[in-house]
Amino acid sequence: MPVGSPVGPLHGPPVVVGVDFGTLSGRAVVVSVADGAQLADAVHEYRHGVLDRTLPDGRTALPPDWALQVPEDWREVLRTAVPEALARSGAAPGQVVGIGVDATACTVLPTDAEGTPLCELPGLAGRPHAYPKLWRHHAAQPQADRINALAAELGEPWLARYGGRVSSEWQYAKALELLEQDPELYAAAERWIEAADWIVWQLTGGETRGSAAAGYKGMYQPDLATPPGLAVPLDLATPPDPAVPPDSAAAPGAAAGRPAAAFLARLDPGFAGFGAKVEHPLLPPGARAGGLTARAAALTGLPEGTAVAVGHIDAHVTSAAAQALEPGHLLTIMGTSACHIVNSEALAEVPGMCGVVKDGVAPGLWGYEAGQSGVGDVLAWAARTAAPEAYAVRARARGIGMHELLTELAAAQPVGSHGLVALDWHSGNRSTLVDHRLSGLVLGLTLDTAPEDLYRALMEATAFGSRMIVEAFEQSGVPVTEITVAGGLARNPFLMQLSSDVLRRPLNVVGSRQGPALGAAIHAVVAAGAYPDLVAASAAMGRVDRAVYRPDRRRADDYELLFAEYRELYDHFGRGAGPGGAAGAAGAMHRLRAMRDRGHAQLGRSV
Amino acid sequence: MPVGSPVGPLHGPPVVVGVDFGTLSGRAVVVSVADGAQLADAVHEYRHGVLDRTLPDGRTALPPDWALQVPEDWREVLRTAVPEALARSGAAPGQVVGIGVDATACTVLPTDAEGTPLCELPGLAGRPHAYPKLWRHHAAQPQADRINALAAELGEPWLARYGGRVSSEWQYAKALELLEQDPELYAAAERWIEAADWIVWQLTGGETRGSAAAGYKGMYQPDLATPPGLAVPLDLATPPDPAVPPDSAAAPGAAAGRPAAAFLARLDPGFAGFGAKVEHPLLPPGARAGGLTARAAALTGLPEGTAVAVGHIDAHVTSAAAQALEPGHLLTIMGTSACHIVNSEALAEVPGMCGVVKDGVAPGLWGYEAGQSGVGDVLAWAARTAAPEAYAVRARARGIGMHELLTELAAAQPVGSHGLVALDWHSGNRSTLVDHRLSGLVLGLTLDTAPEDLYRALMEATAFGSRMIVEAFEQSGVPVTEITVAGGLARNPFLMQLSSDVLRRPLNVVGSRQGPALGAAIHAVVAAGAYPDLVAASAAMGRVDRAVYRPDRRRADDYELLFAEYRELYDHFGRGAGPGGAAGAAGAMHRLRAMRDRGHAQLGRSV
Repeated sequence: MPVGSPVGPLHGPPVVVGVDFGTLSGRAVVVSVADGAQLADAVHEYRHGVLDRTLPDGRTALPPDWALQVPEDWREVLRTAVPEALARSGAAPGQVVGIGVDATACTVLPTDAEGTPLCELPGLAGRPHAYPKLWRHHAAQPQADRINALAAELGEPWLARYGGRVSSEWQYAKALELLEQDPELYAAAERWIEAADWIVWQLTGGETRGSAAAGYKGMYQPDLATPPGLAVPLDLATPPDPAVPPDSAAAPGAAAGRPAAAFLARLDPGFAGFGAKVEHPLLPPGARAGGLTARAAALTGLPEGTAVAVGHIDAHVTSAAAQALEPGHLLTIMGTSACHIVNSEALAEVPGMCGVVKDGVAPGLWGYEAGQSGVGDVLAWAARTAAPEAYAVRARARGIGMHELLTELAAAQPVGSHGLVALDWHSGNRSTLVDHRLSGLVLGLTLDTAPEDLYRALMEATAFGSRMIVEAFEQSGVPVTEITVAGGLARNPFLMQLSSDVLRRPLNVVGSRQGPALGAAIHAVVAAGAYPDLVAASAAMGRVDRAVYRPDRRRADDYELLFAEYRELYDHFGRGAGPGGAAGAAGAMHRLRAMRDRGHAQLGRSV
Repeated sequence: MPVGSPVGPLHGPPVVVGVDFGTLSGRAVVVSVADGAQLADAVHEYRHGVLDRTLPDGRTALPPDWALQVPEDWREVLRTAVPEALARSGAAPGQVVGIGVDATACTVLPTDAEGTPLCELPGLAGRPHAYPKLWRHHAAQPQADRINALAAELGEPWLARYGGRVSSEWQYAKALELLEQDPELYAAAERWIEAADWIVWQLTGGETRGSAAAGYKGMYQPDLATPPGLAVPLDLATPPDPAVPPDSAAAPGAAAGRPAAAFLARLDPGFAGFGAKVEHPLLPPGARAGGLTARAAALTGLPEGTAVAVGHIDAHVTSAAAQALEPGHLLTIMGTSACHIVNSEALAEVPGMCGVVKDGVAPGLWGYEAGQSGVGDVLAWAARTAAPEAYAVRARARGIGMHELLTELAAAQPVGSHGLVALDWHSGNRSTLVDHRLSGLVLGLTLDTAPEDLYRALMEATAFGSRMIVEAFEQSGVPVTEITVAGGLARNPFLMQLSSDVLRRPLNVVGSRQGPALGAAIHAVVAAGAYPDLVAASAAMGRVDRAVYRPDRRRADDYELLFAEYRELYDHFGRGAGPGGAAGAAGAMHRLRAMRDRGHAQLGRSV
């Protein structure tokens, strides 16, 4: 039950707005503060989607592995989806107690000191590095490799918090790429900020930063002291920031808990001062970032002063929506990619996890994150690349989509009858291998192999990949006692049953079709003071259907055989098992990736 | 120049007919005896094509790996394509000095003593084993495995002549499968005969058999004595056969040079007498099998008594058409599958070769055969399975086929820029691994992988597979000094250039678009006595364009990197290199194949 209502007279029961910024679209929901019931939603597809071939000018080509976004697409979501959802809900603006925002991460952009994205400054629209780099921008792998190698060499204590390897997707790798490829823009980038924090800046008029993104994507671990001798020089310390709201947490000591300037200098002398671009007081999940400015109120149609929660990560807010905040309750969000989040009372080192952050998901607990780089993305690749005209005609005639047709055909097969096993690494492997130069593999092809066979093998591969992650948690001392699935793919019953069979566990399904947006709304009610904390708000407003899928013993046993094959290929190609190690067959994916990049460079696709 | 003309008064220069029975169609050519110039051709597509799902009744399902044909489809070729080609040539029937026939091998069928296919006997049309088993019927692999294991155990001297492993495609494996799965039909099968020999039987009215097919597909090696103690019992000796033409070679001693009855009995007691179903005097390539019967003359429109050459294998006759009979001149026929044929003065043991037969291709030389189970088949799989509607629309708009479109797009890429490497084993691996339970693999897939990328990777894989064969020959003491390509894929300039680059050698191209049919015609002129032997006839009538493709040094160097990856996967998955051997990752393909077969059995696809 809401404990209070901090805003003025209501014309009805209190409601709250959650806005989720995904890879291809943003969506707003309006939900009841009392029980989380969704009153309305509205979706806005980004006009530019993902820039992975050219800049918006259509001329400036992007190299392989690039993925950019356009900030104006995000503003459009605030301008269109928020008022639309509110209008559909029937609620009056005065009923709205707060607004919360989540976004993909690490999606990060360079701005000037006032928060203007560099790509919006005069003369910079043609510079690829001026744009936000989407989470799945994977071109900074060489930089990530160097960060990992140096951190391992120096025994940086934070490295273990990230499974022993930080990702090319994160803030530091992408920033180092910017420095080395466009130093002029690097110098112009006074702030280097997560998309969610930037969007909140548009709402409150001041810079704030969430502690979770800083922890998961920015290697911020406040309990780890800066090693002696690596203390940051005084001239790199962050100046006092006038935009810090007076009620925010106090700023930690300069660089404390972050990679030190001396460490960064060893990567590149020009990188030593990078900390200044990200340093800022940090707010925990559910904290109030500020109130809506008059300008933002006009943009969204919400009252000026409405409480705004600090920005948070899309996957992580969903834990609140799924009532998955207690220790051992794993939430897996299956969409374009997949994210696995679980809380634990203990700190453990999990090989290949993305990160562990204290209070990162639920107050007082260590929040663990792992993930799969591609899930829905990989199935979409199969549907658009490896299904012929006859299938398109057939789907159209029946008024269904290609995914539905392929799923239906795939579902009719006994386990293993396609004779295939696939590695789902088309977009690399985030956990447990943390290597985006890995690639997809299909084994077992015959002249009889049909599109639905490949599609099913890829579905199975994603479930096997998920099991590798669950096993890594459990073997490292992070128990997994319950699993809830969220995300668009939770609505594919065949894939869910298959996942339950492969995992040999019952699967809950989040009760909202807009899990992240509901999660953002739950964070907003806490920011608005309507509930005392996230756990209470999640218990009242979160929604989960328990044990919707239960494993079938016989199928599970059959999948066990396929999983054994998957695991062997996983170890061979991912870990260099066997003679030659990474220099042998296991290095094949890296070598082929390098050849591909050289070939594309010949074609002039490089910047 | 022709040395004589054994038939009556001509109304013009002598011509000869060659008929090639392929996998999906038969084609007849009429060529000039003087110089091999093609005057006309005609193609007849088999009405039933390949039966790999059901029998012609549309109801009787076939298990995986089955591939049958219908004998009446072959008769239709004689009835339609031969007279059509003759009519188009403008030649009078009286100008025709002979007719030669080649067919795919080992394509083998059970008949009664009169040569009637069992599938044409009353009540047997619904029995899958009553039909001819096409070369690419691969369901007899378990039988082949047992033959190989026993032969290795007993040290059978013929085993080395087949690279150490006989194929599931061949006469004995397919016959043992018949015995074990339909013993009643096995008993009814008085003859077990190659398609080419059966077709010649339709022309001459009497059974004859070519020594080459007996050698390459029936383990007949006349210079190898039957091991002591394994002599065939008297009651299994072949009775005198009234159909043997008086001018044929004398029959060898019963079972001499063939697997002995005692050997066969150890495979299955009921198999001991199998030799009687194949025993027959053998004729060398280019020998006269007989003259056209009145009935066959009426069928084909050719004069009664026209010389008919003994039946031969499609690939092998092509060596004569390509002037590739001298030692060291490798002919590769690239079509649905690929066949590699080279002659040598010396006998050598080549691991994984299909076979070596004295006089098998050219008189006085050891004729070596190796092959790839799928080439055009694999590309066709990609074009029909892994190219989406948009590509089909694009090809149609331009009035080209899918293969042309994919080739064009693939050809625009620098070497290696697709980032892929594939194993071309969708139909198994004939040489050098002799294992039809292997399967195709693609490594390096990303979300950017396009249909043309996969198509090109498969093209490259076929070239790499060819290079593995050439290297196996050379490393075993069979020199390869020149390479000529024949077959439908020789007309894809991009694939040919790619093959030249990968092989690092110039490539000749056979000068006839109907290489096998021309080769059959060349064999027919020898049978007719128009030339003294195959070498003379080939020199006069064969056609080859030399060094049409020359390797590009830079591309060749780039392909070397991809070939190294291919070779590593080849060894790992094909040979069990690495820890665990065949029980480890290398056994993955076998295990997945077995799962697939069990799954299909659950679906009721088994007989």
